[in-house]
Amino acid sequence: MAMQDRVIIRDTTLRDGLQLVVEQVPAAQKIKWLHDLVHAGVTQIEVSSYVPPKVIAQFSDVADVVQGAMGQGVDISVLVPNLNGARRAFDAGLPQVNFVLSASEAHSKANTRKTRDAAVKDFEAIVAERTARNLDHTRLSAGIATAFGCTMQGAVDEDEVVALAITLRDLGADEILVADTVGYGNPAQVRRILGRIAEAIGPDRILSHFHDTRGLGLANVVAALDVGVRRFDSTVGGLGGCPFAPGATGNIDTEDLAFMLQSMGYDTGVDIPQLVALQRQIAAALPAERVGGCIARAGLPINASAAVTA
Amino acid sequence: MAMQDRVIIRDTTLRDGLQLVVEQVPAAQKIKWLHDLVHAGVTQIEVSSYVPPKVIAQFSDVADVVQGAMGQGVDISVLVPNLNGARRAFDAGLPQVNFVLSASEAHSKANTRKTRDAAVKDFEAIVAERTARNLDHTRLSAGIATAFGCTMQGAVDEDEVVALAITLRDLGADEILVADTVGYGNPAQVRRILGRIAEAIGPDRILSHFHDTRGLGLANVVAALDVGVRRFDSTVGGLGGCPFAPGATGNIDTEDLAFMLQSMGYDTGVDIPQLVALQRQIAAALPAERVGGCIARAGLPINASAAVTA
Repeated sequence: MAMQDRVIIRDTTLRDGLQLVVEQVPAAQKIKWLHDLVHAGVTQIEVSSYVPPKVIAQFSDVADVVQGAMGQGVDISVLVPNLNGARRAFDAGLPQVNFVLSASEAHSKANTRKTRDAAVKDFEAIVAERTARNLDHTRLSAGIATAFGCTMQGAVDEDEVVALAITLRDLGADEILVADTVGYGNPAQVRRILGRIAEAIGPDRILSHFHDTRGLGLANVVAALDVGVRRFDSTVGGLGGCPFAPGATGNIDTEDLAFMLQSMGYDTGVDIPQLVALQRQIAAALPAERVGGCIARAGLPINASAAVTA
Repeated sequence: MAMQDRVIIRDTTLRDGLQLVVEQVPAAQKIKWLHDLVHAGVTQIEVSSYVPPKVIAQFSDVADVVQGAMGQGVDISVLVPNLNGARRAFDAGLPQVNFVLSASEAHSKANTRKTRDAAVKDFEAIVAERTARNLDHTRLSAGIATAFGCTMQGAVDEDEVVALAITLRDLGADEILVADTVGYGNPAQVRRILGRIAEAIGPDRILSHFHDTRGLGLANVVAALDVGVRRFDSTVGGLGGCPFAPGATGNIDTEDLAFMLQSMGYDTGVDIPQLVALQRQIAAALPAERVGGCIARAGLPINASAAVTA
């Protein structure tokens, strides 16, 4: 590892973190948290989703949140479930648009009532729409959910995940998000699958999205780093439970991820104490949610260098 | 990694897990938990400490616990703070005796009122006592606490840790325990330090002891596996808080460690559901303690193979 290698932490507190939070968080509150993230040095933020409000009411304020998030000098992006959502994202002038499909056929059908092949066609239509609008500067991310296993079908074929990543890249994805949606992944598997995808499309195109449901989130990050991946999703306080694992933690924790990376000598550019302060605000605002992390609880080591704290 | 490489999980619930538990756990209860560990397939167990009762009252029943633990067909060991403790351990006929000193001079003086050099002399005296008694079949483990940093002195010199490991091996240690006593270690550092020690004395002589205080426990295990280490300490439910980090988790969790290792294809020989059942018993018996882990909370994946569950 080269010291001071840059690693990007893409925060998805406002999207994946809030996705299952029933209590409606006001748009102004979301924008305040986004400002705090930016102030703490986070440069890439997924801010909301263009999913229909009847599916997830939490994102019914997506237009307001996007408006408040634009012009902050950071890369913001929004999740889109289909071509209609992508059109809204293109209309809003977002610099990046994130589409996600599922590697697991069972999960795909349950989650979107579509086969995996139909979802690939959706992504093709989104790429065509971008082309028709001459929006080549708008980055398209294609995500592969349940890439490491699925709570419905169990194991997911690794060859199929790798092939899917290549297909999506070939169709026009600028970035491939590879997601352990339900926390089934392990470091050996992460090295295998991400290693193969990195070899096929280059590690720089990969964004890893791990959940810490079974405690292996940061161990999986180490495995991903080993095969050259330098971009990771996370949420403040690990916000984001999984509906299929009651009481389980959700995403990997932004503060703990930053601590690990910076301790290892990677440059993330984020200020951990500021993130811990934000975590406390979010925990206070959402008393029904599990919000927490090890660094917030135990504190930084006394020998943490300036690079770790700022 | 060769599939089905054997990895040893040494459980230290009864020693490091209980060390700071104020409520006295009856010896019969400890022996019951030990039986459950053995039944779950754990083959190496640290059962108590010959520390004076006025220092840690929890271990005042060490004689009873050792008597109850012997003859179970597993390798049991006991921690000894000095030559006097080692004499009691030799008298009891224990197959393995564990001595620990501290790489941090500040920690050494605070913890044992001895310099590090004086502690090395203590180990030398323990080895001489073993020789004088013709107990060459009794294994001696020498532990290096605060090998990855110290809450009092901060950073600990890596060269000194490596040199200490070599010294202890040269003096007669059969095993070198390398301990992240306060949860300061990170995977890059673990690879460096354990890699160097493995090169000097062989990976088979190393036992890693990680704390999960800052969430990096299992990530550090992955790093240790990478340099050939195949022996890890842990406690059921991660029992064992750190007095310097209130509310922080302590040891790495035996069930989560087993899950990660078995998912990665390593053979640990332990039955995870049985360990989860034991965790629930321990949690019920010690309501004031933080006892928990991800697998106990989230459950095993539905595609967990027989190798993972038994």
